[in-house]
Amino acid sequence: MNNFLKVKTAEEVLRMIESFEPLGSEKVDLYSAVGRILAEVITAPESVPHFDRSVMDGFAVRARDTFGASESQPALLQVGGEVRMGEASSLAVEPGNAIAIPTGGMLPAGADAVVMVEHTGRLDDETIEVMKPVAPGENVLMAGEDIRSEDLMFSAGKLLRPQDIGALAALGIDFVSVYRKPRVAILSTGDEIVPVPTSPLPPGKIRDINSFTLSAQVSEVGAITGTVELVGDDLDSLVDACRRALDHHDVILISGGSSVGVRDLTVSILDFLPQAQLLVHGVAVRPGKPTILAKSGKKILWGLPGHPISAMTICRTFVLPCLYSLQGLKEKSDWNDLGTGQAVLTRKLPSVHGRTDYVPVVLSKSTEGLAATPIFGKSAMIGVLTKSDGYVIVPQHVEGLDAGSAVRVHFFHSNFGR
Amino acid sequence: MNNFLKVKTAEEVLRMIESFEPLGSEKVDLYSAVGRILAEVITAPESVPHFDRSVMDGFAVRARDTFGASESQPALLQVGGEVRMGEASSLAVEPGNAIAIPTGGMLPAGADAVVMVEHTGRLDDETIEVMKPVAPGENVLMAGEDIRSEDLMFSAGKLLRPQDIGALAALGIDFVSVYRKPRVAILSTGDEIVPVPTSPLPPGKIRDINSFTLSAQVSEVGAITGTVELVGDDLDSLVDACRRALDHHDVILISGGSSVGVRDLTVSILDFLPQAQLLVHGVAVRPGKPTILAKSGKKILWGLPGHPISAMTICRTFVLPCLYSLQGLKEKSDWNDLGTGQAVLTRKLPSVHGRTDYVPVVLSKSTEGLAATPIFGKSAMIGVLTKSDGYVIVPQHVEGLDAGSAVRVHFFHSNFGR
Repeated sequence: MNNFLKVKTAEEVLRMIESFEPLGSEKVDLYSAVGRILAEVITAPESVPHFDRSVMDGFAVRARDTFGASESQPALLQVGGEVRMGEASSLAVEPGNAIAIPTGGMLPAGADAVVMVEHTGRLDDETIEVMKPVAPGENVLMAGEDIRSEDLMFSAGKLLRPQDIGALAALGIDFVSVYRKPRVAILSTGDEIVPVPTSPLPPGKIRDINSFTLSAQVSEVGAITGTVELVGDDLDSLVDACRRALDHHDVILISGGSSVGVRDLTVSILDFLPQAQLLVHGVAVRPGKPTILAKSGKKILWGLPGHPISAMTICRTFVLPCLYSLQGLKEKSDWNDLGTGQAVLTRKLPSVHGRTDYVPVVLSKSTEGLAATPIFGKSAMIGVLTKSDGYVIVPQHVEGLDAGSAVRVHFFHSNFGR
Repeated sequence: MNNFLKVKTAEEVLRMIESFEPLGSEKVDLYSAVGRILAEVITAPESVPHFDRSVMDGFAVRARDTFGASESQPALLQVGGEVRMGEASSLAVEPGNAIAIPTGGMLPAGADAVVMVEHTGRLDDETIEVMKPVAPGENVLMAGEDIRSEDLMFSAGKLLRPQDIGALAALGIDFVSVYRKPRVAILSTGDEIVPVPTSPLPPGKIRDINSFTLSAQVSEVGAITGTVELVGDDLDSLVDACRRALDHHDVILISGGSSVGVRDLTVSILDFLPQAQLLVHGVAVRPGKPTILAKSGKKILWGLPGHPISAMTICRTFVLPCLYSLQGLKEKSDWNDLGTGQAVLTRKLPSVHGRTDYVPVVLSKSTEGLAATPIFGKSAMIGVLTKSDGYVIVPQHVEGLDAGSAVRVHFFHSNFGR
């Protein structure tokens, strides 16, 4: 195993992630399909609507019978009956005739337009006057005008939103093939880490934070958290835990203790896993330089920094895109926009050329929209992070950003709750 | 029952929603708490960290022993041992002494700062030279510097994000009280509506779309969809369905057929439900003017338009805030920012004074960020909506927006998948 890889740039790591093969697919019903990624191409099996449909309450007419009609010289038409909602009418509109029709009603034979009820007056039981002409097709949704049979609706790799689910329902498609949700194991290491319920906390110990923050983060992109385990800082325990996790998970997140030794352990594990391959050993970013990415067969292993803010940042920056990639998301450039917002920087952000910086910010409202104020400070501070809304990226080839710059804030969380 | 209410403005309806009492609360573990709304005040039960903690690999020292140290005149210190990760050291730093310490290690007695290993050199087994002075507290996270015991962490009504979950974990809080998820029943009416699997589709019929789009939308703010039912367009069937739904749900969404008769039915139902109260009968918005809001005791009923786009827009505009209100979300102004993005309008949007307009838009990338192009057209077109990303609001007292205006786009979906 070659453990001596060059430090990679953030760009290089993201490109590598994009090349990951999606997991298998499964059929789900439409109620479970929102937020999932399509694993098949959807072509419209029929037209929507499949009949000419009125979009107004009024009268189905032959448009030419209304030409020239006005308030002073209305067109007079004979009412030949009424279209009932949800039914095909056996009636037909003959020249000089009109048939009453509700919004959504099926246009009867012979008619090519609908006069809005507001533009008509009733003279007697059988006659209306029309005060305004209609053009052919006016106030009618023609068969196939919304969706045409055989239209390409969606390509594989599309994230299904509520409106997309609606279109599938309209087409009578009640099951779709979507990519499987990745199963993620979260292993936390570090001799100082103890389980959350530990109380009182012994001197020198801190509670496990990363299991909870990482689990919360991965849940927001559709992944399932499986095993969550605190593992001792020794090679045997880590190898054991990884081997067990590989059986039932697609991705393993190992959040390292903060000491150098633990980080090296994560690489050493690979010698004991099947078909192991170290892909990334160090990324030119801050925080999170010691990030590790590896594969064991098709399974993915991430070595994340132990500091909670660093771990969350690397999870948001690399692990979540990886989980989307495993779910076959095709519009990969959209990663940059998922869970982000525009803001204006309130103060200068210094940075180092050749390194991508992720700086936590607090959002506040300003007259111009949102203002982003950077939080500086020791990265281990989780209390500080609860005041932060996300982070701003200072790209690799930039030496800092000026106050007043427009920036994109990457949230640690999706906008909505769940 | 007074059925003759004045048409309300969007603002008035939102203010009414804000006054709704939250549902009861329940205890959940931290893994289930992300995206939920806190129903209790959280005060820090202890300090984080609860001991002085090194944030660097290096040597714990008495800062004064390094004063004046430089490359040319390093300070010489005797190494008195090593702090082990996660343990309280029995060692103490005496004057002229240093103790090796890893990142995250507990500062030993007597020490008040940490010298980074990079600024030291080892002379022999027992002596190091320090090339740079440190100030007291340097490279140390003091006890309580992150979170101080008794600090107010979160107020009730706060939406818990991954970083907030992290802080709770750090404090040893593994269960929190959150407001209950609203249970929503979705009843679709309309003589033209048939179940999605219906094939071939009889003439004049269309498939049920709203059950699916509404269910997808409410799931994104943490609500649970319970009963979903197609109900006949008659009073008896609707009253029966509502009564059954009231037993096990907090909110009933009745998506009306497009005909006038069905909308009136929704109001008539109230005469047959216990403690019924009509709150809103018509809103000065487009689409969605015939929207109805009512209560039966503490249960909430919404009458939504039948057109899929109109129903989705009203759901996003009023029903989702209502579901957040029932979950006790306090930062109510944030509704306006949840699931939105900034963009620039590509063309003029005309509007009518005195009415709030919701206009679907397609987003595209421009040099300036995102560009929003309005979609005009017949509101029944679900195929068109799959090309749309959300909508732009033209406020009540504005007569349209000019091309180039900065607008906020309200997504029909959360930014992330699930």
